[in-house]
Amino acid sequence: MTIQAPYLLFLGDAADNLAAKVAQGIVHWRPESCVGQYRLDDCNADCGLDDIDIEQAVAAGAKTLVVGVANRGGVISERWISVLSQALEQGLDLAAGLHNRLADEPLLARRASELGRTLHDVRHPTEQFPVGSGKKRSGKRVLPVGTDCSCGKMYTALAIEKDLRDRGIPADFRATGQTGILITGAGVSVDAVVSDFISGATEVLAPEAADEHWDVIEGQGSLFHASYAGVTTGLIHGAQADFLVLCHEPTRTHMRGLPHYPLPGISECMEANLATARLTNPAVRFAGISVNTAALDDAAAAKYMADLEAEHGLPVVDSFRTGVGRIVDVMTS
Amino acid sequence: MTIQAPYLLFLGDAADNLAAKVAQGIVHWRPESCVGQYRLDDCNADCGLDDIDIEQAVAAGAKTLVVGVANRGGVISERWISVLSQALEQGLDLAAGLHNRLADEPLLARRASELGRTLHDVRHPTEQFPVGSGKKRSGKRVLPVGTDCSCGKMYTALAIEKDLRDRGIPADFRATGQTGILITGAGVSVDAVVSDFISGATEVLAPEAADEHWDVIEGQGSLFHASYAGVTTGLIHGAQADFLVLCHEPTRTHMRGLPHYPLPGISECMEANLATARLTNPAVRFAGISVNTAALDDAAAAKYMADLEAEHGLPVVDSFRTGVGRIVDVMTS
Repeated sequence: MTIQAPYLLFLGDAADNLAAKVAQGIVHWRPESCVGQYRLDDCNADCGLDDIDIEQAVAAGAKTLVVGVANRGGVISERWISVLSQALEQGLDLAAGLHNRLADEPLLARRASELGRTLHDVRHPTEQFPVGSGKKRSGKRVLPVGTDCSCGKMYTALAIEKDLRDRGIPADFRATGQTGILITGAGVSVDAVVSDFISGATEVLAPEAADEHWDVIEGQGSLFHASYAGVTTGLIHGAQADFLVLCHEPTRTHMRGLPHYPLPGISECMEANLATARLTNPAVRFAGISVNTAALDDAAAAKYMADLEAEHGLPVVDSFRTGVGRIVDVMTS
Repeated sequence: MTIQAPYLLFLGDAADNLAAKVAQGIVHWRPESCVGQYRLDDCNADCGLDDIDIEQAVAAGAKTLVVGVANRGGVISERWISVLSQALEQGLDLAAGLHNRLADEPLLARRASELGRTLHDVRHPTEQFPVGSGKKRSGKRVLPVGTDCSCGKMYTALAIEKDLRDRGIPADFRATGQTGILITGAGVSVDAVVSDFISGATEVLAPEAADEHWDVIEGQGSLFHASYAGVTTGLIHGAQADFLVLCHEPTRTHMRGLPHYPLPGISECMEANLATARLTNPAVRFAGISVNTAALDDAAAAKYMADLEAEHGLPVVDSFRTGVGRIVDVMTS
């Protein structure tokens, strides 16, 4: 699926900036895709874009209204429906990564069909994928993997894409989750694919490419997460990564959502990921470790990263604090 | 889903016995569930049951017509539809594990709805499953895993269930694929579940049970199969097996469907499966190795199994030739 840019970002009635983190991500990584933000009266989020209405967005060239906010309690409210249907009337497609589908809202589905607009429910893939073949593909690939879920894999991948592009090296972020898809306008929500087709969907997502081209594939889950490791395994096999990057959040005390599961050790986690990845690319290796040190102060972060680097002999970065340049150096040296 | 027994087995226009292997499996493992077989004129398969028509099946107490044959070219022919709709008219439910759904045949869907009958498309789960929790459950569990797909995991599991029951130990085969579901009348086709829910579906399939009860969970795929290892991983994590059984077909030259992938070594495969299984049950161990030696003569099979047993120090059995008793001895000692 490809979402037509540029976007009008809908922040709705977001309780705070965290509730609008999808919109924040789009503004951060694809500012050129955004013509403005649309907020309801009681919205407490602000992405720093101009507040515009739908008419102004259309005049500025917008093609799609992107829902950049989580809906409260899983309900698409009447107020949202009113704005979203107005956007359809005025010529925009709609895109969202909500648990419930835009296409399941009768009014939106009917008007989109009548008007020839597209509803992108990016959390719900509609394509058919082949079974994975495991056949070697041309082009280069890098995949962040994690000690846990939600520890910086998407951010790290987007930072690597940007760093490669800044060096003039052709690179594409390949989104595997709803936020990544909304940010970059394309991808596959692999955790929503039927399980027989996880590796096949990943092969389609990161296809054969020119030898010098990099696919920077968004990682998902963790081999050590008892809920989601199946997704992670299929993604690793489909990716055929030349390089892995280990992502880690150093203050987490247990696996996300599983208080009875401790985090794996860094070395143990790297070894398990290499063993899995070697099945489809025996030459795979780690390019470095990407730590999310947001919870640490400057001194503690610097010490933590220096210690980790001494222990593992690989570049240790924080995508936000230090950038990922030293990891890209390894990938391209 | 639970399929009501007993069954009338529909063999259709099966080209040979292999085409009717689902029906053969039901007759072999659940003879008490079968009231007879229904064959079209040009059927070349024979399950050794009485040939009866639908009226006779109903008179004998049948509750469900089970399609025990693969459909040619993925098309449900007019001749099939005619028999299947007749079965609905006379009071039977329908069950099939076809790629295309019975429910997608307009005539069958309409008549089933009008008559209050159930169409079981066992390859297409319709239940919603939770995300896996990884929480320890009571009861005992054993899971066959494989060096490859289609190397005897279902047969081994059914043989273990039978051996346990013959010893008076409470045990239930838990089907994870369409053939197993049709044989035992219940289960979840885990490879057709959305990938986020593989381990959760397995947790639901093999729930908390009495301490002395065994769930014998049907294995799927292989950690070394580049197409399906994600399914295998989620299944292993959801199973929380106390014992694994390694299944192997010794004459296979490459992974099924992947001529560019060799089979893993036996030790390598066991180590990888233990590493994966330890995440949700650190006490897991192998109870033995189950070899499918059908392609070897008696002497070659005996030598192969003796050599393997000497090398690995575990009971090596062939579910068909020797039975699985020595594996069950380890599980229950």
